[in-house]
Amino acid sequence: MSTDPLVIFTPSGKRGRFAKGTPVLTAARQLGVDLDSVCGGRGICSKCQVAPSYGEFPKHGVTVREGALSEWNSVEQRYDDIRGLPKGRRLGCQATVQGDIVVDVPPESQVHRQVVRKAASLRQIVMDPATKLYFVHVTEPDMHEPSGDLERLAVALKDEWGIEDIHAPLPVLAKLQKALRKGNWEVTVAVHRGSLDTRHRIVDVFPGFHEARIFGLAIDLGSTTIAAHLCDLRTGEVAASAGVMNPQIRFGEDLMSRVSYAMMNPGGEVEMTASVRAAIDDLTDQIATEAGIEADQILEAVFVCNPVMHHLLLGVDPVELGQAPFALATSDAMELQARDLDLTRMNDAAQVFVLPCIAGHVGADAAAVALSEEPGKSEDLVLIVDVGTNAELLLGNTTRVLACSSPTGPAFEGAQISSGQRAAPGAIERVEIDPETKEPRFRIIGNEHWSTDEGFGHPRITGICGSGIIEAVAEMRMAGILDDKGLIGSAEQTGTPRCVATGRTHAYVLYDGARFGGPLITVTQGDIRAIQLAKSALYAGARLLMDEMGVDRVDRITLAGAFGAHISPKHAMVLGMIPDAPLDRVRSAGNAAGTGARIALCSVTARRDIARIVRQITKVETAVAPKFQEHFVNANAIPHATDKFTELAQIVTLPDVSFNTGGGGSMGEDGRRRRRARAK
Amino acid sequence: MSTDPLVIFTPSGKRGRFAKGTPVLTAARQLGVDLDSVCGGRGICSKCQVAPSYGEFPKHGVTVREGALSEWNSVEQRYDDIRGLPKGRRLGCQATVQGDIVVDVPPESQVHRQVVRKAASLRQIVMDPATKLYFVHVTEPDMHEPSGDLERLAVALKDEWGIEDIHAPLPVLAKLQKALRKGNWEVTVAVHRGSLDTRHRIVDVFPGFHEARIFGLAIDLGSTTIAAHLCDLRTGEVAASAGVMNPQIRFGEDLMSRVSYAMMNPGGEVEMTASVRAAIDDLTDQIATEAGIEADQILEAVFVCNPVMHHLLLGVDPVELGQAPFALATSDAMELQARDLDLTRMNDAAQVFVLPCIAGHVGADAAAVALSEEPGKSEDLVLIVDVGTNAELLLGNTTRVLACSSPTGPAFEGAQISSGQRAAPGAIERVEIDPETKEPRFRIIGNEHWSTDEGFGHPRITGICGSGIIEAVAEMRMAGILDDKGLIGSAEQTGTPRCVATGRTHAYVLYDGARFGGPLITVTQGDIRAIQLAKSALYAGARLLMDEMGVDRVDRITLAGAFGAHISPKHAMVLGMIPDAPLDRVRSAGNAAGTGARIALCSVTARRDIARIVRQITKVETAVAPKFQEHFVNANAIPHATDKFTELAQIVTLPDVSFNTGGGGSMGEDGRRRRRARAK
Repeated sequence: MSTDPLVIFTPSGKRGRFAKGTPVLTAARQLGVDLDSVCGGRGICSKCQVAPSYGEFPKHGVTVREGALSEWNSVEQRYDDIRGLPKGRRLGCQATVQGDIVVDVPPESQVHRQVVRKAASLRQIVMDPATKLYFVHVTEPDMHEPSGDLERLAVALKDEWGIEDIHAPLPVLAKLQKALRKGNWEVTVAVHRGSLDTRHRIVDVFPGFHEARIFGLAIDLGSTTIAAHLCDLRTGEVAASAGVMNPQIRFGEDLMSRVSYAMMNPGGEVEMTASVRAAIDDLTDQIATEAGIEADQILEAVFVCNPVMHHLLLGVDPVELGQAPFALATSDAMELQARDLDLTRMNDAAQVFVLPCIAGHVGADAAAVALSEEPGKSEDLVLIVDVGTNAELLLGNTTRVLACSSPTGPAFEGAQISSGQRAAPGAIERVEIDPETKEPRFRIIGNEHWSTDEGFGHPRITGICGSGIIEAVAEMRMAGILDDKGLIGSAEQTGTPRCVATGRTHAYVLYDGARFGGPLITVTQGDIRAIQLAKSALYAGARLLMDEMGVDRVDRITLAGAFGAHISPKHAMVLGMIPDAPLDRVRSAGNAAGTGARIALCSVTARRDIARIVRQITKVETAVAPKFQEHFVNANAIPHATDKFTELAQIVTLPDVSFNTGGGGSMGEDGRRRRRARAK
Repeated sequence: MSTDPLVIFTPSGKRGRFAKGTPVLTAARQLGVDLDSVCGGRGICSKCQVAPSYGEFPKHGVTVREGALSEWNSVEQRYDDIRGLPKGRRLGCQATVQGDIVVDVPPESQVHRQVVRKAASLRQIVMDPATKLYFVHVTEPDMHEPSGDLERLAVALKDEWGIEDIHAPLPVLAKLQKALRKGNWEVTVAVHRGSLDTRHRIVDVFPGFHEARIFGLAIDLGSTTIAAHLCDLRTGEVAASAGVMNPQIRFGEDLMSRVSYAMMNPGGEVEMTASVRAAIDDLTDQIATEAGIEADQILEAVFVCNPVMHHLLLGVDPVELGQAPFALATSDAMELQARDLDLTRMNDAAQVFVLPCIAGHVGADAAAVALSEEPGKSEDLVLIVDVGTNAELLLGNTTRVLACSSPTGPAFEGAQISSGQRAAPGAIERVEIDPETKEPRFRIIGNEHWSTDEGFGHPRITGICGSGIIEAVAEMRMAGILDDKGLIGSAEQTGTPRCVATGRTHAYVLYDGARFGGPLITVTQGDIRAIQLAKSALYAGARLLMDEMGVDRVDRITLAGAFGAHISPKHAMVLGMIPDAPLDRVRSAGNAAGTGARIALCSVTARRDIARIVRQITKVETAVAPKFQEHFVNANAIPHATDKFTELAQIVTLPDVSFNTGGGGSMGEDGRRRRRARAK
């Protein structure tokens, strides 16, 4: 009836007329307004808080007078007494419409609220979690009309929340009866909505109205480290972050050596699967402890990982990934139960989502980067480089997205470097070398001062991490300590006693801790060679994508990977890790794969999107492309023989030096061997 | 075109015209004729064998001439050379239509063939198994068009067999790649079709065309024994049957004592669940060994059981089943994986189907009996009595089906009987007592002679089993050794020295093995009392259903249960176990619950039917019905005070004796206590 009061919701602008006495929550639901509720309108959960606005709203064509909503009632008073309701707020399930009204739904009352990501991130996460809590009242059993407790719970979920096709795994079934009776036939259930099928699965059940938070883990399962974010499944907030070493390292530092281990040792893949699963269990405990929650409050986990880790997580022998045509056992996204993966620490009935792989060399981690960075939505041509033990590259814009992987090896992570170490307190992470004096200064993790500052003190200096070695090599090149082939000059050639002879080659002494009982940290010719191999592989991958795209430059570059966050774009470009681009268009996206995992954790829509995104990506195979080999060889010099470094030239001038002290610096037998092993 | 040859299939009568050269298999498929094929028409599996008929067929209006089918070809010749093709048979995928033809599809070539059940059974099983084998050719991987092996297998299953929505559990994923490569991209996959949802799950994958048979287990999980039939999933044939004791007996002989154990011992239900699952594992090994197959050829299991066993199998505390309102945790049928139940011996990816429960006292075993015996399809009123430690009763016809359970206790199985034992070689199973001499003769299990026959010899006699004690008590009553209240007379009163005094009561000596170093087997007053309690409970349940149905007699009675097969209807009626009915209308259905399990194992349709069947059954609760108590008390006498025994009177005459030697025989404190405990 047109004489019914008009109800207008902001910020959505949705409006409709409702009979006097209609609860605001009911009006919101009928209009499809995004207003949360866990208790279903019983005045318990307070998730449906709204803020009525009074006065004239010419834009909306209404004037809202006092009395447009029903009086503050006893349920609201009780809630306010116990918990406190912010000023101006009403409970949407209690306040009823009495006259024309404008009702604002604050962000925290929206189910699909947006989570602001950290500084470096552009994209916001719209909350649409697979697992949510619902409070229901279940009919008591009647021996004359027998039906199971689960079946009556399913009826309640359908009647009160419209949720159909309910299933309960056995661990939930085992606790259902006690929860229903303890809660006097009122329970809060955590329901998981599948993204690959339409079934609803009960993950947990709590007596009465359940106040405790529920969590999910976004796990980035890397070759070297396993990193996890613990996210509140309601708000999307990161409650804790933690990481552990991947214990598979004892079976091989890089992916191919793990594949070899599986090939050479019958049952080796079973051993590796068990070890990584145990580590995930440990990580689960660790992160729960850190956040001060119980591990069984973790109801979901999302995994992103490269294809070898993907297979080893699932218990699939990765041997096919070690040889052409690099066939994956399965490429699509998977919905599993934690129990399927023998994960025992999180909730017994926890659900697992594994992102899809793009190809045998480009895994779910790259898919997660694509989900996070959305190259397919970029107007300008963006190159996304996810730097890790294996580097994944994505190049694309709205017209097309290409992907490849490149076997950089672990040098960028400080492994295979003489004084290398993982990024940890005491590791050198930033380096500058004075071009005149050839004297270095550096910063270590956990200390905000440069080594030459007074405040630096006498901290324990333990080694050099990935970002440190990249800066050191680039700085050595800029200071003329290194020539364009990557050779370190002698003390005479460079004019600094820091260049010391080590057999037929030289090393640069970055830090001599002898006086303090500390280590001698040098950059050796071998270190330079390892970095050259890694950066050549990375660069060659990027060039191959650019060839395929038919371009010789990109508009912008995004460095991803936990490590990408710490690389200085300038030094990366001096080194020739990445193609030439305006320095201000090179940015770090932090751990984009981890962010992609978080997005998938917080959004069922994103889980459904990822299949489409992956289908749109064209895979470029580096292992069999002759052009890759050519780019790889050409990329060995610093700077590359093929590069113009036009942009870079505005910032740095590279000295024109050449040290002819023998081999070791050029593209040697090592690199060729590695490429052959991979293409086998 | 009307000039195309006419093809008529028998026995279906389906007909159609097909272009010359059309393979018979193709014609059959297009007409929806039930003609099997595993290899999809590649001439490998020989499942599509047909028998062409030649001559005049006035009924069909055709004359079939030689040459109506293509010539015998090399594929058929090769198959015939290697395997032998029965005379007159052709391979439907090789023989093509050349003229008007009548083609018979022999039973073994029908997917939905009928399996003839054993003598006692009326119903045939129409094969429609959930798990079937499919041979497919999978596209090889292409690194330039990356997709997972599983995804390409799914495409093949869709293209070649029309099977969509394919999922693979991790154990299958782990062996998929090796199978595909070993089979040179041809594999046979075992696909399970869900009955509760529409998904298809790959249960196993074999390289190339797989010849080995696949099996399922139909498991009747009883309180005392666990019995299983191993069925060929293609033919429905029972390859082996085996049984083990339910190890939960150590936690309590009957169901209520197991519920008490769970209540009294924290974690007791976990202990009981583990023990029964371990026993099922053992049984799986045992039955596989017996059939000479590998346990991992068992791809499916179907479970029927009473509610307490149902909950303990699933890992649910049965405590709610021990008290009103006897609420089940879940009542609907369940599809699980063997892994969910920690079953480790059958195939890693084996699927499990658990039949639905009717109510807290009437379980999936009763549902299985209903599936097997179909009371709802009976024109006359049938009472089905499933005798075990707990008796389930179904009463119904096409208008209505009622169900209840009755706490008979384990007396009918020989437990709680002084010389009682399980049915095993050496146990007395049949008894006759001469009304004149009061001398007994008996038969024991494993010996076909009566004890008075010369051929009986001197076997080891160990005790008396359930059917033996029923016959003994009934015969004692008929011989006047027992009065109508159930009291055993003294030697003087009965005129036989076999009646010996035991304190204030008497016992009847059935067998005195002292001379042979054997046992003294007597029927004591306590034994009589135990049988009276059990039979009163059983009878009271049947009467309660008859009250509810508004009848005072039934048209026919079916005795089910492994034990029901051995009960003599005459003795059961003398004892008053079952209501009065014409003796020729009392039959044994054998292990009807086990048969129901087999039906569900062999037919997805039956799995879907069972939900409907269960919904149509009205549950009558004995525990709270005042009428039940009344019937129970009235049923104590032999014969019942309330019974007319009109039919029975034509066969036996019961002596009118009455021994007044004190208490013990009447409905004593024991029975009342048990009923109270149950109604609590």
